[in-house]
Amino acid sequence: MPTSYAILGAGALGGFYGARLQRVGCDVHFLLRHDCEHVQRLGWRIDSKDGDFHLPVVHAYDRPQAMPPCDVVAIALKSTQNHLLGQLLPPVLKPGGVVLVMQNGLGIEEEVAHLAPGHTILGALCFIASNKIGPGHIHHLDYGQIKLAEYSADGTACGVTETMRRIGADFQRAGIPVELAEDLRTARWQKLVWNIPYNGLSVILNADTAELMAHPESRLLVEELMREVVAAAAACGRTIDESFIFKMLATTDKMKPYRASMKVDFDLRRPMEIEAIYGNPLRAAQSAGATVPRIATLYRQLKFLDARNRA
Amino acid sequence: MPTSYAILGAGALGGFYGARLQRVGCDVHFLLRHDCEHVQRLGWRIDSKDGDFHLPVVHAYDRPQAMPPCDVVAIALKSTQNHLLGQLLPPVLKPGGVVLVMQNGLGIEEEVAHLAPGHTILGALCFIASNKIGPGHIHHLDYGQIKLAEYSADGTACGVTETMRRIGADFQRAGIPVELAEDLRTARWQKLVWNIPYNGLSVILNADTAELMAHPESRLLVEELMREVVAAAAACGRTIDESFIFKMLATTDKMKPYRASMKVDFDLRRPMEIEAIYGNPLRAAQSAGATVPRIATLYRQLKFLDARNRA
Repeated sequence: MPTSYAILGAGALGGFYGARLQRVGCDVHFLLRHDCEHVQRLGWRIDSKDGDFHLPVVHAYDRPQAMPPCDVVAIALKSTQNHLLGQLLPPVLKPGGVVLVMQNGLGIEEEVAHLAPGHTILGALCFIASNKIGPGHIHHLDYGQIKLAEYSADGTACGVTETMRRIGADFQRAGIPVELAEDLRTARWQKLVWNIPYNGLSVILNADTAELMAHPESRLLVEELMREVVAAAAACGRTIDESFIFKMLATTDKMKPYRASMKVDFDLRRPMEIEAIYGNPLRAAQSAGATVPRIATLYRQLKFLDARNRA
Repeated sequence: MPTSYAILGAGALGGFYGARLQRVGCDVHFLLRHDCEHVQRLGWRIDSKDGDFHLPVVHAYDRPQAMPPCDVVAIALKSTQNHLLGQLLPPVLKPGGVVLVMQNGLGIEEEVAHLAPGHTILGALCFIASNKIGPGHIHHLDYGQIKLAEYSADGTACGVTETMRRIGADFQRAGIPVELAEDLRTARWQKLVWNIPYNGLSVILNADTAELMAHPESRLLVEELMREVVAAAAACGRTIDESFIFKMLATTDKMKPYRASMKVDFDLRRPMEIEAIYGNPLRAAQSAGATVPRIATLYRQLKFLDARNRA
């Protein structure tokens, strides 16, 4: 029996990964909000730098009650929709099933653990540039690799587990580069080293990554924010080497000008993932006794802009 | 003989105060960049909440060499134009004359002292809402009071001096409320408690004072910035009581929605006074060993926005 996957929130990210898994034989079930009927009728069309493909027959649903309980439930909604998880998750999760949190930010696995007690929870950190460009139509521009790590209630490192290997193997068969990480929290903080400067500043300064890197003062602010994230991680017991900052800066220098996901949401007047990417790390740092004034400044600026943007 | 005043940069601020001084008999000479010919021909028209008036005959000049040396030279340019002072100031300053710095920010008197060695220098902190609404035409909306303090090379408090009393008396005769302050640096830092949060955030968040005060997160950021300014002042040896913060917040709550001067400059694509209001305080705080991460964040954001705004 192939592993069955439920993809909750099949947008540019969930739709892409789910379609790739289905293409190599996984039994995939997609929960869609907007283009369910279109996908039921015509399937997925994926334009990808790894090769375009079309899946004409797709299991698409507009409500979780219609879906079969699955071995793995991938949470690929925007985290701003996580108040819906109490309704969406339980019906689609098989006894003994695994939850795969594909969202950005800190503290999501903790929330999910309350909704799925006794289930194994993995974080899947997605490094991907993809957009939904039409109903059932996704454009995968760049990257695509994921990093898997397992959640533990007490926050300690789980190492590389059998569940991680099993799910990682499915993604690898689907052509997705997979890294298995020993400690979820370190992985989450590392991803924040990129997400915290670029997502927020792209919105606040109305700029893409290349513009932020080109001006010396915004570039310096990016670096100062990265240092503050590293200091917050350290206060929370996670060591990130300084060389990681230079690696992130160098990687971004080499990227094509990129509009961070939060900026895409802002431009579409959607809610931004402020709490997952800023609020939770801010509160975690403060609880650990660290002051993170630059992160707090961005958090408050974003809260103001988000409220006005959706007024 | 009435005191003679040279007003360098007769815009919404210098034009207003100069016209008020002339109206009560001072001998005022205005240096104008844009509307010199208009003012030579038709004088000043001042619409003011204190009463409208018209001065048909005005001494207006387009270059300092044409002006008589004056007892008091008021610097009312934007501080972004201060690189011109080496040319503008010496020709119009009488031997024994006084320089009156009517600009915002920190460290301007130090720069002026190099250009006018041996001269008495006063800071005039202006609390006023006024706009130039046409050639030779100023709209004074609100406030208008000034605070005078004398500069000393070693930064110590000068107390209330005879020069301050004499110039203060002219302004008071002109109907301008005047406060004589014993310490220039304390007065400068106090003004920054308002200017640093509201000027920068109004530009970065595209908001007026009322909007910034209405959202709880931007309001909290305003207060956190005020606390950082107070801490920076303390590191520089100037004590500002915490009650001053609450006074500034309460005053702003009571103001009509106000577009800070930096926002006006930004909207007109003029250079913003970033160095005087942010750069100099930032460097002063750092030299004194204080970290001011929120001020630094605003500084870098503003430098980025200013560069793009004038590209």
